[in-house]
Amino acid sequence: MHNEPYLLTPGPLTTSLSVKQAMLRDWGSWDGDFNQITAAICQDLLTLANAQQTHVCVPLQGSGTYLVEAVFATLLAKDSKTLVLMNGAYGQRAAAILQRMGKTCVTLDKGDYQPPLAQEVDELLRQDPLITHVVVIHCETSSGILNPVDAIAKVVAAQGRELIIDSMSAFGALPVDANELPFTALVSSANKCLEGVPGFGFALIRETALVSCEGQSPSLSLDLYDQWRYMQKTGQWRFTPPTHVVAAFHQALQEYQLEGGQSARLARYSRNRDRLVAGMRALGFQTLLEDAWLSPIIITFLSPDDPAFSFMPFYQQMKSRGFLIYPGKLTQVESFRLGCIGQLFDSQINAVLEAVADSCTALGLTAIQPPQTMSL
Amino acid sequence: MHNEPYLLTPGPLTTSLSVKQAMLRDWGSWDGDFNQITAAICQDLLTLANAQQTHVCVPLQGSGTYLVEAVFATLLAKDSKTLVLMNGAYGQRAAAILQRMGKTCVTLDKGDYQPPLAQEVDELLRQDPLITHVVVIHCETSSGILNPVDAIAKVVAAQGRELIIDSMSAFGALPVDANELPFTALVSSANKCLEGVPGFGFALIRETALVSCEGQSPSLSLDLYDQWRYMQKTGQWRFTPPTHVVAAFHQALQEYQLEGGQSARLARYSRNRDRLVAGMRALGFQTLLEDAWLSPIIITFLSPDDPAFSFMPFYQQMKSRGFLIYPGKLTQVESFRLGCIGQLFDSQINAVLEAVADSCTALGLTAIQPPQTMSL
Ligand SMILES: Cc1ncc(COP(=O)(O)O)c(C=O)c1O
Ligand SMILES: Cc1ncc(COP(=O)(O)O)c(C=O)c1O
Repeated sequence: MHNEPYLLTPGPLTTSLSVKQAMLRDWGSWDGDFNQITAAICQDLLTLANAQQTHVCVPLQGSGTYLVEAVFATLLAKDSKTLVLMNGAYGQRAAAILQRMGKTCVTLDKGDYQPPLAQEVDELLRQDPLITHVVVIHCETSSGILNPVDAIAKVVAAQGRELIIDSMSAFGALPVDANELPFTALVSSANKCLEGVPGFGFALIRETALVSCEGQSPSLSLDLYDQWRYMQKTGQWRFTPPTHVVAAFHQALQEYQLEGGQSARLARYSRNRDRLVAGMRALGFQTLLEDAWLSPIIITFLSPDDPAFSFMPFYQQMKSRGFLIYPGKLTQVESFRLGCIGQLFDSQINAVLEAVADSCTALGLTAIQPPQTMSL
Repeated sequence: MHNEPYLLTPGPLTTSLSVKQAMLRDWGSWDGDFNQITAAICQDLLTLANAQQTHVCVPLQGSGTYLVEAVFATLLAKDSKTLVLMNGAYGQRAAAILQRMGKTCVTLDKGDYQPPLAQEVDELLRQDPLITHVVVIHCETSSGILNPVDAIAKVVAAQGRELIIDSMSAFGALPVDANELPFTALVSSANKCLEGVPGFGFALIRETALVSCEGQSPSLSLDLYDQWRYMQKTGQWRFTPPTHVVAAFHQALQEYQLEGGQSARLARYSRNRDRLVAGMRALGFQTLLEDAWLSPIIITFLSPDDPAFSFMPFYQQMKSRGFLIYPGKLTQVESFRLGCIGQLFDSQINAVLEAVADSCTALGLTAIQPPQTMSL
C-alpha cells in the first residue's frame, strides 16, 4: 500500500521503496565498500552517455544548482565569455550564477518558453568570436519545453566553442551520446530521471578540458578538478558525501537497468505524458506548448479561465486525493505543472486524471468535461 | 540485530534505525508538510544554542565544508581581514577556502595539535586592528583536541571583532550558549553529534550581521543571505533540499530530546571517551593528547612502535570484527583515531576494546596487555 502522496513534481519525485530501503544502513565514507559504490555509479553514468573514452564523471555534494555553478567555477577561465540560452527559470539562474561570479556573460533571452534555435546561436557565435562557451538547458523544467540541444550542439561545435548542457531534468530519459552530441560538460542530479533521492549531482566533463583547470575555481567546495583528482587518487569524495543518498542512487541505477535503461524509461515517461495530456485535454485543460515541444518530463497546463480556479485551493484538493502537483513558473500567464517522471505508471496516471476531475468538481469549476476512458 | 559495521568515525556515524527509517518516504520539497519540518529543525537548533533572540538558523545543502565556505562568502566584505586559528586539518582548510576566494587572511599556526590560546589571540588582535574576523575550530577533529573556544570568544568580543566558530564535530554535545559565548556565526552539520545522516549543514548567524549581506556572496549556491530570505518568505529551501536527509535529521532531533538533550549526550560521549581511553591505555596504547585536551568526540592514538603494526592491516582486522576505525591526520607521527560519537553505548565500547585486543593478537603485536574489566 502506498499511503503517502505521489509527487507529480520534477524531482524530488516518487522513488521506489527499494531505493529508499537502500538508505537503511550507515556507510563509512572512508571505507572500500563505499568507494566501490561511488566508482560503480561513475562508470554507469559515463556508459549511459557513451562517454567512457572522452569524459570523466565527477559527482558533487549538494543540489543540482551547485553542479551548474561548479562547472562554471571549474571550467571558465578569466578571459572566458559565456553565451547563455535562456527560455525560462533555469537559463535565468545559469546567467545569475555567472553574474555573481563576475564572469563575462551574454544571453539569448527567448522569454518564458520559446526555444532557442540553432540558427540564432550560429549567428550570435559568428558575430562574437570572443564567446568561448555556450550554456543550454536540455529540458527547461520551468515550462517543460524540450530544447533542440542536438542542433545547437552541432553549430557550437562547428564554430569551435564549448558546450555546457544543463540536463538536470532530462538525463537518463532523453538519449545522450557523447559521440554524436559534442559537449564539454553535462550536469544532472540524482533525483530526476534516474529516480534517486536528492543530495548530490554529477558532471560529465571532457577530460581534455578538465586537466588544465587546476586551481581555477574560486570556490574550494565547488572545485570539480580537485574533486576529480582526489577521487582518482583515493577513491573517496573530498568532503563527507551524503552516503545514504549515494547508496540509494546506486540502487536506483540497478533498477534503471532492470527496467531496460534509457529507452525503456523514455518510453514509460512518454506514455505518461501522452496519457496525461490526452486526459487533461479531455477534461478541458490546455497545454502551454504545442505537441512538438512537449517533453516527457513535465507539462505546463494553463490555469482555466474561471474565477473558481486558483492554484492553492486546487493544490489542496489534489493533495487530499493523494497527489502533490507543482506550481507554474511563467511570468505572463497563470499555470500549473504536472510531472511525468518518477515511479508513475498507468494506474497512477488514471488516478491523477480522476483526482483532477474530482478536484474541479469540488471547486465548482464549470465547463470541465468528465474524464474519458483512454486506450493508447 | 546489528549486522553492519559500527562506525568509529566522526561523521558519518552510526545512526539509530529509526533515524534511517524516517527516510522511507518521499516528501514534496514545495509542500507545507515539509516546510514545517524545516521550520521545526531551525527552531530547535536556535533553542539548543540559546540563540533565538539574537541569531537566525540557515540550513544549506552540501557537506560541512560548504557551510564554512558559505559563511565566509556571505559575511566577509571586500575589506575584511580574517585571522584563522589553525591547529590541524580543518583550520588549514578554512584558510585554504579563504585563499581560494581571494580574501585577506592571516593565520596563527600551532601545528598538528597545540591549542591556540586566548592570550595569543589577544596579542595578535592588538597588533593588527585591521583584522575583522577570527575563525576558530571548536573540536579540531583531526587530532580530537577541544580548543579553548570560550576564552578565545571573550578576547575576540573584548577587541570588538567578529567570531566564526566551526563547531562541526562539537555542536550538540559541547554546550553552546549564545548569551555567554559571543559569536557572529557558528556552523555545524547534520551528521555529527546530533546523529543525523549526511547531506546538509546549518549556520547560526547573528541577525544584525546577516541583514547587511545582500548580494555580497560571489557564489549563488552558497549565499546564506539569499537562502535565509527565501526561506523567510516561502518556508522553502531555495534549491532542491535533500528531503530524506532533512526528515532523518528531524527524527534525530526528537531522539536527542528524548535522550535528554545536550547534557545527556555529552555525558554519554564523555563516558565513551573515558572508557575507550582507559581501555586502550590498559592495552598499551597511548593517546596523542594529555587528558585535559581530550574531547568527547574523537581520540587520536599513537600507532604502536612495533613493525607488526601498520594502519591498513589493523583497519582490516577491526573491520572484520565489525568496526570501522579512522586513520590519523597528523603530519609528524603515525596515528589512528577512534570516535566516541554516534549510537555507541557501553556494550559497543566493550566490544571495540575486545576487537582491538584480538586484532593486535592477530597481527602478532607483542607487549600489548589484555583488556581489563572496567567499571567507571
Ligand atoms: C533544468 C534544471 N536546472 C537546474 C535545476 C536546479 O536543481 P536543484 O533544485 O537541485 O538545485 C533544476 C531543478 O529542477 C532543473 O530542472
Ligand atoms: C571541525 C570540522 N570542520 C569541517 C569539517 C568538514 O565537514 P565535511 O566533511 O562534511 O565537509 C569536519 C568534518 O569532519 C570537521 O570535523
